[in-house]
This record gives sequence, C-alpha cells and structure tokens, in this order.
Amino acid sequence: MDVKEHIESLAMQARSSSAVGSRATTHQKNDALEAIAQLLSEQVDRILAANAIDCDRARSNGLEPPLIERMTLDSDRVSAMCEGLTQVAALEDPVGAIVDETRRPNGLLISRMRTPIGVIGMIYESRPNVTVDAAALCLKAGNAVILRGGSESIKTNQALAALIANGLESASLPKGLVQLVGTTDRDAVGHLLQQARDVDLIIPRGGKSLIERIASESKIPVLKHLDGNCHAFIDASADPEMASAIVLNGKTQRNSVCNALESLLVHEAIASDWLPNIGRRLNDAGVEIRACERAMGLLGGVERVVGATEADWSTEYLGPIISIRVVSGVDEAISHINRYGSHHTETIVTAEEASANRFIREVDSSSVMVNASTRFADGFEYGLGAEIGISTDRLHARGPVGLEGLTTLKWVVRGEGQIRG
Amino acid sequence: MDVKEHIESLAMQARSSSAVGSRATTHQKNDALEAIAQLLSEQVDRILAANAIDCDRARSNGLEPPLIERMTLDSDRVSAMCEGLTQVAALEDPVGAIVDETRRPNGLLISRMRTPIGVIGMIYESRPNVTVDAAALCLKAGNAVILRGGSESIKTNQALAALIANGLESASLPKGLVQLVGTTDRDAVGHLLQQARDVDLIIPRGGKSLIERIASESKIPVLKHLDGNCHAFIDASADPEMASAIVLNGKTQRNSVCNALESLLVHEAIASDWLPNIGRRLNDAGVEIRACERAMGLLGGVERVVGATEADWSTEYLGPIISIRVVSGVDEAISHINRYGSHHTETIVTAEEASANRFIREVDSSSVMVNASTRFADGFEYGLGAEIGISTDRLHARGPVGLEGLTTLKWVVRGEGQIRG
Repeated sequence: MDVKEHIESLAMQARSSSAVGSRATTHQKNDALEAIAQLLSEQVDRILAANAIDCDRARSNGLEPPLIERMTLDSDRVSAMCEGLTQVAALEDPVGAIVDETRRPNGLLISRMRTPIGVIGMIYESRPNVTVDAAALCLKAGNAVILRGGSESIKTNQALAALIANGLESASLPKGLVQLVGTTDRDAVGHLLQQARDVDLIIPRGGKSLIERIASESKIPVLKHLDGNCHAFIDASADPEMASAIVLNGKTQRNSVCNALESLLVHEAIASDWLPNIGRRLNDAGVEIRACERAMGLLGGVERVVGATEADWSTEYLGPIISIRVVSGVDEAISHINRYGSHHTETIVTAEEASANRFIREVDSSSVMVNASTRFADGFEYGLGAEIGISTDRLHARGPVGLEGLTTLKWVVRGEGQIRG
Repeated sequence: MDVKEHIESLAMQARSSSAVGSRATTHQKNDALEAIAQLLSEQVDRILAANAIDCDRARSNGLEPPLIERMTLDSDRVSAMCEGLTQVAALEDPVGAIVDETRRPNGLLISRMRTPIGVIGMIYESRPNVTVDAAALCLKAGNAVILRGGSESIKTNQALAALIANGLESASLPKGLVQLVGTTDRDAVGHLLQQARDVDLIIPRGGKSLIERIASESKIPVLKHLDGNCHAFIDASADPEMASAIVLNGKTQRNSVCNALESLLVHEAIASDWLPNIGRRLNDAGVEIRACERAMGLLGGVERVVGATEADWSTEYLGPIISIRVVSGVDEAISHINRYGSHHTETIVTAEEASANRFIREVDSSSVMVNASTRFADGFEYGLGAEIGISTDRLHARGPVGLEGLTTLKWVVRGEGQIRG
C-alpha cells in the first residue's frame, strides 16, 4: 500500500472508531488502560528487545548520544509508563460532564456537556513514552489517536502499539482508537496534515523547526508547543533568599526544558545588594551570564559574564546561560517580558500584593507566577494528572494541556415544547 | 499606500492597541460602548445618508434585491444597534475572572484567569450591523479588532467606524482597538490572512464559499461558521402536538437561517398516525417535502411531496423544503444525523428520559436539544447577551460564541517561595 493510502486508511479507521470511543463508559476505558499497563509489565523484555534494535541502529547511524539517551528504555522507564497508565485510569472521566447550567426566562434549561474532540494526530520525536502517554490521555478523553513517532524508534513504537491494541481488544474497544503510522516514510506526516475531514487536531511535540513546519503545512488545527523564553522579575520588595532560590531552581534544576529560566529582570532598588551574590552563585553552578550595562557594572566580582546583545533578550538558551537586565520597576519588567518573551511562563518574586496583581494581570503568558519557580509549569504539577503537551497557542488551550484540553463543549438545551416567537 | 502596507499597518496598530485594551477597566470599556451608542443615536442622519449612497450604488450595480434589503439601514435598525451596544455594556466583564482555583499539596495555589485573545480579524458580508456588534463584543472582551466588511457597504461602514473611533477616544482608549480596512480592494483579505504575527483569530461571517476560501488560505486560526443541516427526530413517545409545533416552528418561522430545520426523522411507531397530519400542515405553510420511500407511502394525501435522493439527506435547503425519513428508532436517528448532518443543531421530541439522554450524549452536534425548536440555537437565546457568530468548529468554541469565546484562559500560580525538587 502506498503511504498516502495508508494514512487515508488510518484516518478513516480513526474516524469510525472515534464514535465508539466517545460512547465508551468510564469503566471500559479504565479497563483498557489497566489491561495495557498489565501487558506492559508482563512484556517488558519484549519491549526492551525491540528498543535495543532501535538503539543499535541509531548508534550505527551515528545519532547524537543525547538523542540515543532519550530513546533508550530500561525497566524503570517502562515501569514509569505503567504508572502513567494507572494514573490516567484514576483521573476523573471528563466526557459527559455538565457545566454552567442555567434556566432561561422561557423555561429552557441551557448547559454544556464535555465531549471528546474526535480524532487527534500526534506527531513526536524520539521519546517512546509519548506513545503510551498520548494513547492513554486520548483514550480516556474518548478520542481516537493516530501516532506518528520518530522513525528512529519505530520498532519500539510498533511493539508498544501492538500491546495497546491487545489492551483495547480485551476491553472490547476497537483497535482503531490507537493506531501507529506503520511506515517511517517522511511523506507520511505531509499526508496526515491533509486529512482535515477525518482528523480534528494535530499535536506536534519536538523541536521548533518541526513544529513550525507542521503548523505552516497543516490543513488541520495545530496545538503548538513552541519555545519557552521564561523570565523571573525580582521586585524591590522581594525576599532576597527566596529570590535566589527561585532563580537557581529555575536555571539549574534542569536547563534543557521549556520551563527553565532564561532571563532575569532585577528591580534597580535591590540590584546593587542582591545581584553580585546571585551572580556568583549562578557562576558557581556553572551558569554563564549575559548582562545589560547596568548589571555588568554590578557584577564586577563575577567571572563568567559578558555583555548582552539585543538578540539575547529573545533567546531560549536551553542550556547553562542566563540573561540579566536591571529594570526600573514592574512596568518596565512587564513591557520587557511582553516584548521579548515567548508568552510561556514568567514569575515575579515580590512581597507586594499590588505588584503581584499587576504582573499576573498584565503579563501575557500562558503561566504567570508569584513567588514560585517557573519549573512548576507542568501538567502534573498543576494537578492535571498528566499532560499531552504545553500549548503556546492562545486558542482552545493555553499552557499545560491535560484531559480537559482534549475535549470540547457542546450546548445542551432541554425544554417542554418551547418554540421561538 | 499599497494594500499590503495598509493591512500590515492596521495589524501592527491593532497589536499595540490590544495591550491597552487588555488592561482597560470595565468602566472604561463601558464608557466607550455608551459613548458610541450616544453618538450613533445623535448621528442617525449621517449614517443613513452614507448608507443611501451605498444602496444607490448597489442598485445601479444590479445587486440582488435580498442583498440590498440586508444592507439597507433605517432608523429602527440603527436603534437596534444602539440597543446592542447598551446590552453589551451591561454584560459582565469576562476579563480577569478567576476560575478553577485549587491548592496543591506543596501549597501552590493554582487557578486560571480569563484574558482577551488579542487581535481579532472579522471578515463579513453586507449587514452593516455586524460592524457595530463585532466592535462592541471584541472591545468588551479586551481585544482589538480589524473589520473587513462587504465592499458594497463601505461608506456605511466608514461612517460607523469614524463614530466608533470617536467613542473610543472619549473614553481615552486607542482608536487602534477598532479599525476598518479602508479599501475595497479584494487583495486586502488575502493580506489580512497572512498577518499571523499580529492577528490571533479570524472570524468570517458569510456564505459557505467565502468561509471555505478563508479557512483554506489563512495562516491564522479561523473560527468557522459553516452550514446548518438541522434535524428533528420525533420519537415514538413524542407528544404529537408538541412535535408538530416544534417542526413547524423550526421550518417555517424563518427558513433562510442556519438554525432552521432541514430534515425530519420520524419513529416508525408513530409515523402512520402523525406523518400525514404534519405533511399537510407543512404543505399548507408552503413547504415542499422530499420523502423516503416509507414516508412517501404515508403521505398519500399530501400534494407537494417527491422522493428524496441520497443528496437530500445532506442538503441545507435554506428555504421552504424539508426532507423526511422514517427510522426504526433512536439508534437509526442518531446514526443518520451523525452521518448526514453538519453537526450544527438537532432536537429530539420525546417523553422518554432514556431516549433524550442517548440523543444528547451521542449526537455529535454543537447544540443538542430535547423538546425545543432548533431555532433557539442562538447566543441571545442561550443567555450570552449577544453573539459574534456560531462556530461549527470543534476547537476553542463550539456553537454560539459570545464574550467568553472571545477570551482565553491563562494559568495563575501563587506560592510562598516554592521551588521544584
């Protein structure tokens, strides 16, 4: 079968299965999730053997070590997948929930019911755990999903998909609810992006260029996760030690992730007292500094600091570098963030409620925080149970996306024979 | 200035003004709305004079009478616009509202705040009231809007836009919050659809072909309002007189609108008793019938009835025609609707809660109703105060879209120095 036909057939299968998925009971969906977890724990060896083939091939193809590290499974990582399945099973079923019920003067009872979106196309790179996580979340939200994993992990993903299909079958759900694109042909993605009749939403996870290409090519709405150029603003009233802890955590706890801190804005009133100390501590933690002129003047005793260029303010380093700017107050901080930021996650450290409220209200980002590390911008940390991604889009869902973001609302109207006059 | 530059400059103005709009107080936004209403009531003559120029030109260009009727203003229609402005001013301000507040085990307080979307591009055809309605809703939700009305109404829209600009100014809000595309050049729409950096959402209102063209060309998310092939299913337990009233209201109260009834499904258990009567009454009301074979057999005494073709089941007539099919029960009704319908609005007439619940849960439409006329699918009838359109999309907003659909939610996290372990 050629790749276009293959994708069309997956999309048609997904559409017809999604009707069954949308009617499936909570019990049935949880049975499937638990059956998949059970099969996964029984067949760890089989999954690891498939993964070993992928990793060997990746090594002989000269793939970079960090990428090989990301795609490599071990029994702990498989256990984590099982745990994820159990956690999703434990989440409340969003489908069928009624919200915002009101009665109109004519007696009509108006409400909205949460429903599945329909068919999701998930396009992702090397991490094979996404195969299981995405399947679990889409299934629990009553959707069908078409998975297109990285070609380097094809054997692993095929083994996982076979096991998911068995789990679905044991819960009497159609295998069409979770399907893996069965070819590594690069054209498959392009064809998937054309299936607007049968696919309702594309969720890409991976590098910025992949996501931008998908967004520009897709005929289907895309929930994008682009860069996280995250800021901390240290207000004049900030507790200095709290500010330092939040900055160090944001920058050094894990620096390759989208919610890591990239840029530090410091109120001029505390800059001379606080900056030299945090500068040294960042240096000690292996972090390079790109500083504005005023900050440079205050970081005299700090070794690894260079002048920031205009480009630094918009850069997501994803590594041990931070930009630092001294600002005149909350106004300048907000306008700097809204101008140079990527609208992902920003935090203010302050003791003043008025500054906190202005920051929350006026910073235009998917997560705005007060006195907390940007590293908390995450579906699990927010109590969503799991996340399918973090949306940097403004429509439908913004920030960490869990089950609710995989659903939509329809209007429900109940009457006793009302007609319109 | 060439048209591309003009559109780019509007988009940049809108983006910078939207920051001011998002921070505007409820009081300030309501002041602007009331000032616009006041100016509109004072300057009716000026608006009507501009409209007369448009209508004269439209007539000499040979525009169809129904289109001229739609674009023609009189003092009643201008009064209705004023009333609309006052109603939007009276609506609760959605911006800044906090929803779903929860506290996490680590003490973080997680919630979401409603915020404006940013910049809306509104593309519509002849009705000039859309200029005022869309401006009012976008403004109240804290957005900037770029309006592209039909070229036939350019003078009217320019007069309205000038007045809106004065109203904004008198409330100390930037004129860039509501801007009209100042040219009738057809390329303007194409350029607007490219401004993905500065425009966040396109809302087209008009014929299906316009909307499809916009959706396929746009680089910006589009909230579409496509066709309404609306169904009524009359269950075995339906009260016959209630069923007739709902069908007659749905089909004949106004047949050119998207929530008018297009297709009638009748349970076989009541078809022989009920169909001949409703058939005659539809005929008496001037409605032609396209019937399935079984319905044909029961409509012997009815004059204007012909056999339905397969194409009839998917047709939105937008006129005095209805298709009728006898079905074996709620199962067949649901699968017929999900297969042939346009996922807009459907109603069931029934006395059985079980049938009602299955219909509500399983019919995949933006509005599902029990014992009510499909004609109620409307933002005003649902209590939204006003609507900017009815979305037939599944993402972001489905069905009638009011103020809430013109906003999005950002995450708000409040801590006392929490860092991630």
